[in-house]
Amino acid sequence: MPFAVIMAGGRGERFWPRSRMAKPKQFLNLIGKKTMLQLTVERIQGLVGISDTYIVAGLEFKDTIMEQVPELPEENIIIEPFGRDTAAAIGLAALTLGRKNPREVMIVLPADHYIGNVRNFQEVLRSAVAVAAKGEKIITLGITPHSPETGYGYINCGQLADTIAGIPAYRAVRFLEKPDYARALELLSSGDYLWNSGMFVWRIDMIRKKIEKHIPSLAEGLKEIESSLGTDRYPKKIDKVYSELPKVSIDYGIMERADNVLVIPCDFGWDDIGNWNALEKYDEKDELGNVLHGQGVLLDTLNTYIISNKTVALLGVKNLIIVNDHDSLLICHKSRTQEIKKVVQALSDKGFNSVL
Amino acid sequence: MPFAVIMAGGRGERFWPRSRMAKPKQFLNLIGKKTMLQLTVERIQGLVGISDTYIVAGLEFKDTIMEQVPELPEENIIIEPFGRDTAAAIGLAALTLGRKNPREVMIVLPADHYIGNVRNFQEVLRSAVAVAAKGEKIITLGITPHSPETGYGYINCGQLADTIAGIPAYRAVRFLEKPDYARALELLSSGDYLWNSGMFVWRIDMIRKKIEKHIPSLAEGLKEIESSLGTDRYPKKIDKVYSELPKVSIDYGIMERADNVLVIPCDFGWDDIGNWNALEKYDEKDELGNVLHGQGVLLDTLNTYIISNKTVALLGVKNLIIVNDHDSLLICHKSRTQEIKKVVQALSDKGFNSVL
Repeated sequence: MPFAVIMAGGRGERFWPRSRMAKPKQFLNLIGKKTMLQLTVERIQGLVGISDTYIVAGLEFKDTIMEQVPELPEENIIIEPFGRDTAAAIGLAALTLGRKNPREVMIVLPADHYIGNVRNFQEVLRSAVAVAAKGEKIITLGITPHSPETGYGYINCGQLADTIAGIPAYRAVRFLEKPDYARALELLSSGDYLWNSGMFVWRIDMIRKKIEKHIPSLAEGLKEIESSLGTDRYPKKIDKVYSELPKVSIDYGIMERADNVLVIPCDFGWDDIGNWNALEKYDEKDELGNVLHGQGVLLDTLNTYIISNKTVALLGVKNLIIVNDHDSLLICHKSRTQEIKKVVQALSDKGFNSVL
Repeated sequence: MPFAVIMAGGRGERFWPRSRMAKPKQFLNLIGKKTMLQLTVERIQGLVGISDTYIVAGLEFKDTIMEQVPELPEENIIIEPFGRDTAAAIGLAALTLGRKNPREVMIVLPADHYIGNVRNFQEVLRSAVAVAAKGEKIITLGITPHSPETGYGYINCGQLADTIAGIPAYRAVRFLEKPDYARALELLSSGDYLWNSGMFVWRIDMIRKKIEKHIPSLAEGLKEIESSLGTDRYPKKIDKVYSELPKVSIDYGIMERADNVLVIPCDFGWDDIGNWNALEKYDEKDELGNVLHGQGVLLDTLNTYIISNKTVALLGVKNLIIVNDHDSLLICHKSRTQEIKKVVQALSDKGFNSVL
């Protein structure tokens, strides 16, 4: 059975006021009753045992994780003492898991994505694990694009490299950073590009070798930490070493440089739920395109999304996102939801820290 | 010293969610710290003694009145057992006051209007009282119109009839109901019309005679009530008789029919504060035309008026009225504030009675 490493260290502000410093997106129940993290854990059941499931996050989220995933063994929460980007976090996870079995496969999953077709997701992962188990390849899941998104990285999909259980894996020729709109249109229409989902599958010993090769300073730091693993020296050691690890993403540090990356094209209803606008498609709308989570009356109101803990009454408004929380009220035009970080920044600048 | 009768029985819904069934507009501090009722009482200080000031309202408002005007003797609250429009309420006040002195002047004032120039208001009232004291005329205050309002009644101002202390009173030729816009434009441009402010001055015995003449069924009912005034029979008697009084406004019942009405043109910053839009002119706006009562951040927000008990964050919105109350949230386009009654009706239809 493979290991799973769920990356839950993100600090998304795009769902303010529901998301807060102390409770970013992955800990919110944005779709249905379960939180994004709970859905992520649930989604791999049957494929990965709970004792082989690990969650990487900062210490400030440990209590929330234990509350939301009570079945997870406490020692399976891997604490990053500081945020040092994904390469360091994945490296730390690899060496922690490596003590159990360095030749086992490790699946890396973001904690805050949504996947509609879980059965297909598991089928793909099973194939990816089978390919990765050979110890030679990095497998990444690429999402078949349906629109010219400028918010994602893209993967150039090359020759067929392997097929397991009918699921093909292709050579990943190139990783691209977020494109501008014109370039995104080109990438979409070429048919050769997939969205980079941030989901990876590889054998622990193999990824450690790749880190050694492509980010040697990270490999060195990790080795120093490794020597203290399971001893009393670990907390002090990691606190000291981790802050000096290179701050680099796994995409930039490894994916763009490694020559053994395969990509599996996926179309299982993946959604990174990037901002408030992404939610309405999971709700039933009224005949004027409104979604109301809460109670109230909507008069001559169009295309508006509302979450309110109080009775709302709208008259003559349209195209708004309205979120009325216990201590804050957000009203944002739908065309501006990408800019909610500005709102959070402005609130911070004004010193309204209690609502952040 | 004249009597003042403040009409506080109104049930305005136009300031929902601040105004509620139990707390209509006259009991709200919409401008500054004092409530409309408190401002109305304060505005006549020096002209009318507090022991000669009376407030007419339903029983459900008695506690609020005593709380807001603690200096008012409790017996000066005249309770309407039911709402039977202004003629009945004024008639009831006239007979109550008449027991003190039927030949005294009585000033009738709505409890929910705003007046900017209180000194000028008092000057006008002093003149009106002097004219009314002769016992022959009904004096009404007419407001010099500055715009073609369709929400007010109009008074056709005729020949000069009297001048006291430099303040002229004209014959009121005709009372007009609320006009349509084209007609309102005509009335405004003619220069011969004033807005009907609902403020009246007359001697008690005279108005009672007018009621006898123009609304005899009301006069009859009032006499029946009068016979029980000051006795134990009063509560039962008024409960029985009041519900059968004719439901007619003082404008329709008396003003439009009496032949002895004078009107004094006034320009003392009168404002009936008809809806949420009326408030912003009393506030300081930011450079983009926004008013924020509360705390928060307004990004790319234009011409928006906000009252919030929580931190607000607006992004990319304009022309809204936003009122965030303890249990309700109103968001209304500024062009639609006249229709807030519809909101209240819709909330009622849906059974959200706790917020009404």
